[in-house]
Amino acid sequence: MVLILMGSDSDLPIMKKAAEVLEKFGVPYYMTVASAHRTPDRVERLVKEAEAKGTKVIIAGAGGAAHLPGVVAALTTLPVIGVPIKTSSLNGLDSLLSIVQMPAGIPVATVAINGAENAALLAIAILATSDEILARKLKEYREEMMKKVEEKAEKLDNLGYKAYIENFLNK
Amino acid sequence: MVLILMGSDSDLPIMKKAAEVLEKFGVPYYMTVASAHRTPDRVERLVKEAEAKGTKVIIAGAGGAAHLPGVVAALTTLPVIGVPIKTSSLNGLDSLLSIVQMPAGIPVATVAINGAENAALLAIAILATSDEILARKLKEYREEMMKKVEEKAEKLDNLGYKAYIENFLNK
Amino acid sequence: MVLILMGSDSDLPIMKKAAEVLEKFGVPYYMTVASAHRTPDRVERLVKEAEAKGTKVIIAGAGGAAHLPGVVAALTTLPVIGVPIKTSSLNGLDSLLSIVQMPAGIPVATVAINGAENAALLAIAILATSDEILARKLKEYREEMMKKVEEKAEKLDNLGYKAYIENFLNK
Amino acid sequence: MVLILMGSDSDLPIMKKAAEVLEKFGVPYYMTVASAHRTPDRVERLVKEAEAKGTKVIIAGAGGAAHLPGVVAALTTLPVIGVPIKTSSLNGLDSLLSIVQMPAGIPVATVAINGAENAALLAIAILATSDEILARKLKEYREEMMKKVEEKAEKLDNLGYKAYIENFLNK
Amino acid sequence: MVLILMGSDSDLPIMKKAAEVLEKFGVPYYMTVASAHRTPDRVERLVKEAEAKGTKVIIAGAGGAAHLPGVVAALTTLPVIGVPIKTSSLNGLDSLLSIVQMPAGIPVATVAINGAENAALLAIAILATSDEILARKLKEYREEMMKKVEEKAEKLDNLGYKAYIENFLNK
Amino acid sequence: MVLILMGSDSDLPIMKKAAEVLEKFGVPYYMTVASAHRTPDRVERLVKEAEAKGTKVIIAGAGGAAHLPGVVAALTTLPVIGVPIKTSSLNGLDSLLSIVQMPAGIPVATVAINGAENAALLAIAILATSDEILARKLKEYREEMMKKVEEKAEKLDNLGYKAYIENFLNK
Amino acid sequence: MVLILMGSDSDLPIMKKAAEVLEKFGVPYYMTVASAHRTPDRVERLVKEAEAKGTKVIIAGAGGAAHLPGVVAALTTLPVIGVPIKTSSLNGLDSLLSIVQMPAGIPVATVAINGAENAALLAIAILATSDEILARKLKEYREEMMKKVEEKAEKLDNLGYKAYIENFLNK
Amino acid sequence: MVLILMGSDSDLPIMKKAAEVLEKFGVPYYMTVASAHRTPDRVERLVKEAEAKGTKVIIAGAGGAAHLPGVVAALTTLPVIGVPIKTSSLNGLDSLLSIVQMPAGIPVATVAINGAENAALLAIAILATSDEILARKLKEYREEMMKKVEEKAEKLDNLGYKAYIENFLNK
Repeated sequence: MVLILMGSDSDLPIMKKAAEVLEKFGVPYYMTVASAHRTPDRVERLVKEAEAKGTKVIIAGAGGAAHLPGVVAALTTLPVIGVPIKTSSLNGLDSLLSIVQMPAGIPVATVAINGAENAALLAIAILATSDEILARKLKEYREEMMKKVEEKAEKLDNLGYKAYIENFLNK
Repeated sequence: MVLILMGSDSDLPIMKKAAEVLEKFGVPYYMTVASAHRTPDRVERLVKEAEAKGTKVIIAGAGGAAHLPGVVAALTTLPVIGVPIKTSSLNGLDSLLSIVQMPAGIPVATVAINGAENAALLAIAILATSDEILARKLKEYREEMMKKVEEKAEKLDNLGYKAYIENFLNK
Repeated sequence: MVLILMGSDSDLPIMKKAAEVLEKFGVPYYMTVASAHRTPDRVERLVKEAEAKGTKVIIAGAGGAAHLPGVVAALTTLPVIGVPIKTSSLNGLDSLLSIVQMPAGIPVATVAINGAENAALLAIAILATSDEILARKLKEYREEMMKKVEEKAEKLDNLGYKAYIENFLNK
Repeated sequence: MVLILMGSDSDLPIMKKAAEVLEKFGVPYYMTVASAHRTPDRVERLVKEAEAKGTKVIIAGAGGAAHLPGVVAALTTLPVIGVPIKTSSLNGLDSLLSIVQMPAGIPVATVAINGAENAALLAIAILATSDEILARKLKEYREEMMKKVEEKAEKLDNLGYKAYIENFLNK
Repeated sequence: MVLILMGSDSDLPIMKKAAEVLEKFGVPYYMTVASAHRTPDRVERLVKEAEAKGTKVIIAGAGGAAHLPGVVAALTTLPVIGVPIKTSSLNGLDSLLSIVQMPAGIPVATVAINGAENAALLAIAILATSDEILARKLKEYREEMMKKVEEKAEKLDNLGYKAYIENFLNK
Repeated sequence: MVLILMGSDSDLPIMKKAAEVLEKFGVPYYMTVASAHRTPDRVERLVKEAEAKGTKVIIAGAGGAAHLPGVVAALTTLPVIGVPIKTSSLNGLDSLLSIVQMPAGIPVATVAINGAENAALLAIAILATSDEILARKLKEYREEMMKKVEEKAEKLDNLGYKAYIENFLNK
Repeated sequence: MVLILMGSDSDLPIMKKAAEVLEKFGVPYYMTVASAHRTPDRVERLVKEAEAKGTKVIIAGAGGAAHLPGVVAALTTLPVIGVPIKTSSLNGLDSLLSIVQMPAGIPVATVAINGAENAALLAIAILATSDEILARKLKEYREEMMKKVEEKAEKLDNLGYKAYIENFLNK
Repeated sequence: MVLILMGSDSDLPIMKKAAEVLEKFGVPYYMTVASAHRTPDRVERLVKEAEAKGTKVIIAGAGGAAHLPGVVAALTTLPVIGVPIKTSSLNGLDSLLSIVQMPAGIPVATVAINGAENAALLAIAILATSDEILARKLKEYREEMMKKVEEKAEKLDNLGYKAYIENFLNK
């Protein structure tokens, strides 16, 4: 079970990518909004409930002074994955530094700015350390990715770059 | 009454400057260590106690993914002043962005990196909005600062820059 | 009474959010344009008038080499709140550093880039240190915010993320 | 079993902190040097061997154009934790961005610059998702940390900040 | 012979500029997609094949945690030219630092963010160190560039800036 | 006489603002394109001609690795004013640092990113050190600016911010 | 006549380099301390006196939220040269942006971080636009610089780099 | 034949590393000082002489507004390798951007900040495109590097990290 938290519903278009990956792998998850600043009690309650339910990994996305992942990590010893959301003024550099620069003792596993897809893949890799079926699915996923790159390369080779750009990249 | 919090005792050499300014102005304060990440319950308890005691302003210093000021601000409607502590790797830019870029709804009054002295002066200016004696003391403090600059300027004028550097800046 | 200053009328679409919050709380304010660089005398006159009128807090927004908040702070011992305005080239990092990195002695309470709403909430928190009605209103405002987050969370839970994004986030 | 890799033996004074934490928790690990750039074959061999041995998590530290964690992540579906090492010119901002900004598909769980201690704690939290004894130890570790903060706070309270700085921070 | 690699087909609109320059100079090249992270084996195979075919220079473009140029450089002693691709969040600063900050021993010749045209010109300059015809063509190319600047200057001089902007810059 | 140089005709929409200010003040000027990198000889010739014609100030705008102002400054002892042009990837931070960080011995008077208007005003201030009519015009220009700010402030005061934004800022 | 201002006497070890250059060229100057924030009236008085005395150029150095050069520029139409002073936390990036990013209408001629020597040379170049003797001296100064470089090159050529480093660079 | 240029003799402790690598490979080189700003004519003369002598590659190191590599690249069609020198205020970020962000048409092959060793290795890789003996030496150099890493790894394995740090890293 994975819990996906986000600091604001405006983060949903990014964070839904985590949900989509988990669905693709058949990993049960639930997803909700909880602000570290506007609803500290709600965050605490959700983390305690998550532990009680047997949730294994928490993914938390936030932007700006992005405290949600760190606040969650302070409340649990479960692995917490932080997704820095791109911001309009500082492009997510603020979110990234607010999430990754945690003090010794309380880690947050940070992924790229807007990297919700990788947050889900990391959660799956964590679950896969004790779930062989999931571990196998992850390997298959990698192979699919590889094949897609190779298909693109072949297509590019066959068509030449002008036709490729025309047909596959121009919207 | 002012509460001075800091995320780690290693912040004390900076944060003590806030205490010294408050002492100079005769403003009662108390100062303690509480980490938003290592001791979230302690932070919550301290903030609730502060409100109960009639504390008017909270100063919070922290470095890195500096969540303490924002976490405190989430727990109270008292004015919260954040002091970004200089860090060894990113020089406090991480601390600054983690403190200042708060989302709409929960402000933190941020001062300069390592600016504990100004945090105290800001706390005093806040208290002075309803305390005329303090307001007068603040004006006197400004006048003293002005005089000190003018004394330095006079000394520089009298001595010339070589002697001034030799006598007043070299160590 | 709160004075809202801004360096240019182009800052108005951001700074008006401070006015809207103050109106919502019933806090009297007045708002005008005054450039630290183009109209230094006007800034000085406005600050002196503000003190004479019994203004308690000054909010000042500016962009680029954003000197207005610091210049105002140099002219008064009232609490001054600085709003760094996002700029077209450096996205407001220039504004932020120009406002927050004040020297010891003259603090500016800095909020997030474009954080005019928080500037007003901070001004209210300052006034609330000696105004119980305002203090109560601030607490209610927080509760409202909390409820809004919870309503969104419930809606997201009921609809699922696809319908939520479709209906509430797509323009 | 945890594998700790580092790009250069000059990273050892930082990376050993990961080893120390793992030792403290009684988690078996092995640690070696392997450069993504100077010894790509060695990296590949080590990752394959790690999988064969049943290693569950790989910690990789590197500085500058810090490719080691990403290169390892490309070679395995095990969870990979990246430690950006502080650099002399850009202070580790280069290391951080080179590690955290991974493309969709291949996550690296990134911790703070020089955050080797947290890398180990994160590895332990991952192992603890299927090891209750470890999970309990993690909770105890948190409690110890909490107590240490409270002891420091008490000492600061008893001694006052001057004596505290004198006795516990000077030197 | 020049090999142009890119980490993703989304880099093609930038990287094709390298192809166009090579075509203009009549330098044989081939271009394909290969991700350092998704297809490490493919990268290795391509580099080995390139060496076997007598390729003299490899151009590699990548964005974000842009490891492709460094990974290629680790696999060959041929000169490798890295093109940092502009990214949506950090504008290519992440790509630039991930490519240019290589450790001693394994150089990557880095050009500007999105500088694929210059990557090709640099490849040609390298080939021209042992190919006089190419060296002559490079000199002619420079002269053409010079003439174009002078023609623009003359046109600007004749038309005045208003008409010039109207006719030549307004789309 | 003022010479306005720019590294590329794409800088013209910014640099023309310098021309417009000089025209407004009746200061003779000429403006042309010359790239430090593509046309080093042309730059040298133009600087020598400028000196021969009695040009007093040179304004040079350039973007990216913006060497034009520094290269011009190396060729003349006339005051050289540098205008960093905003770039698409690094927003002009590259241009700014390339222009302002000149070594001891060869100064470039640097203005804001895209600050061509201020470059012209600075050129006029320089000429005005020995031209009283120009000095007077500069003072009048300042007074005009002041009046415009005051007119805006009055309008804002009369209309209220909603009507002001509606009528004067909405496109 | 040149006025050298600095925001704090701690800037003197840098700003004295401007004085030394002016002395070397025989340009009369006076130098004093005046803080834009601590002594706004003093700054205004000094600028007015400077104009009355016939001062032609003002050099102003400041660090952090470095408002002094901009505040001076707002008070006069004389050319103002700003020297960003290196700061302990952000290394002078804050000073640089606070000085260079001035709004349209009020230019500050900005030099490199700690570039006081170049500030003086720029002041001299400005004065030299109407002073042929100074213009000649500037040209001679350049020639001296050139000769020094050539002497060093010759020495390096004669001694080889090992002996050169040993004898001329080691302490 | 390789020419090593540097903007100042203070760059020699870094740039000598390029000389040492070239010596180790038996590649003839000469090294001198020439400032793009202080001695533009000298730079031009040296580049013309280098071409006349049959120099194949030019390495140029510079710091701050580091124009030397770009200025050299503008004067020749030989491959030019730029070494950004670390600076005291901005740590070489200014040097890096001034060198790498060259406009289309005039490439500079940029290496890491202070990366003189890699500049030499890149020069050798360029020469090796038409020199099989050099190509072989490069491969051997790589193998040596690999062996050194493996020796260190073995030593670390044998001694354990405590003894390794004690004996090989503690000065």
